[in-house]
Amino acid sequence: MSEMNQLCINACLSCLAACERCATACLQEPNLEHLRDCIRLDRQCAVLCGMTAQLLAMDSDYAPQICKLCADACEKCGKTCSQHDHDHCQICATACFDCAESCRGIAMRLP
Amino acid sequence: MSEMNQLCINACLSCLAACERCATACLQEPNLEHLRDCIRLDRQCAVLCGMTAQLLAMDSDYAPQICKLCADACEKCGKTCSQHDHDHCQICATACFDCAESCRGIAMRLP
Amino acid sequence: MSEMNQLCINACLSCLAACERCATACLQEPNLEHLRDCIRLDRQCAVLCGMTAQLLAMDSDYAPQICKLCADACEKCGKTCSQHDHDHCQICATACFDCAESCRGIAMRLP
Amino acid sequence: MSEMNQLCINACLSCLAACERCATACLQEPNLEHLRDCIRLDRQCAVLCGMTAQLLAMDSDYAPQICKLCADACEKCGKTCSQHDHDHCQICATACFDCAESCRGIAMRLP
Repeated sequence: MSEMNQLCINACLSCLAACERCATACLQEPNLEHLRDCIRLDRQCAVLCGMTAQLLAMDSDYAPQICKLCADACEKCGKTCSQHDHDHCQICATACFDCAESCRGIAMRLP
Repeated sequence: MSEMNQLCINACLSCLAACERCATACLQEPNLEHLRDCIRLDRQCAVLCGMTAQLLAMDSDYAPQICKLCADACEKCGKTCSQHDHDHCQICATACFDCAESCRGIAMRLP
Repeated sequence: MSEMNQLCINACLSCLAACERCATACLQEPNLEHLRDCIRLDRQCAVLCGMTAQLLAMDSDYAPQICKLCADACEKCGKTCSQHDHDHCQICATACFDCAESCRGIAMRLP
Repeated sequence: MSEMNQLCINACLSCLAACERCATACLQEPNLEHLRDCIRLDRQCAVLCGMTAQLLAMDSDYAPQICKLCADACEKCGKTCSQHDHDHCQICATACFDCAESCRGIAMRLP
């Protein structure tokens, strides 16, 4: 497996964990009302990151296409998280942007 | 949630289970050597079906795009499985083709 | 695969979908503040149901133990959901109790 | 979240990736016939590791119980993988033993 794939798997799995932690922590915040979108996008991003990591680890032909989708989801989630001051949101935003960049690199292999 | 989404979630989850069972049963067959591709595609298809079902259940904006990918994976897996006489392969092929058709319906919402 | 395993896989996957839908719908409710626990337990229950279904489909030796855990999670989630009048909560509660009963049947195989 | 939980999440996710890669690589080996058990256990271990990481990230009350199961699965998978000379098997064995140790630490919190 190429180093690029390995790094992208790691970025996806870090992002999955950050999203699950962020959603969990958001659910305990006093300003829950303003975190609806954050939780919603965290959940979708976590699903896509987990699945992307698995398909990359399986050397799947679908990897570039799924990486493209995953990058989109990470960017959208990262932008929303970055608007909140909570530590878990900021940490999640960083993980999302890292993952998006890594996934873009693999999505570029698309014809 | 629309009935179409509900039916597609069910098709995806049935296909996920059929793929996992098929891969598990293939691993116990005497002609394992000829089932490499079947197991490989079963695993990828299971990942995509599980994730598609989750994103549909989350009413995600990514649903049509992931359904397109999932339909492709199901068709490829179904074609391979349908070439083998084992019951688990034939059952899996049917589940794959059902899921592919259901996913195509949702993928058609793409602009 | 035994019919009992098949039924339990179906119950787990139905419960997974109901939990994901319930959490998604809760996030859009006006009384979000009172649904924190519901969303939290939906998420955990969905993870356990998905994993239990996969291990059952793999004919795993860990099935009875994971079914025991899954039954506990389903009961806890079902009890919380059943206290809310939203349709999605009531539907989720029913799916949780069905899944708990089915999982208990398999957990009973534990020595 | 405690540092111990964070480390365990990382160990689980590394193990998940190692197991998926090992199963994928095994399916391409000439001595496939001797790798049936390895692939079978890789798949189960991957499911348990992924779910354990998610439940830990959700700060779930089920974490210690699932960590106990995950540690058992990792040890069993690690023992089988360690008997094969393939690089992917040896790498997977190491990831399995690391994850088992980390999960044991959290399982010890069980009453």
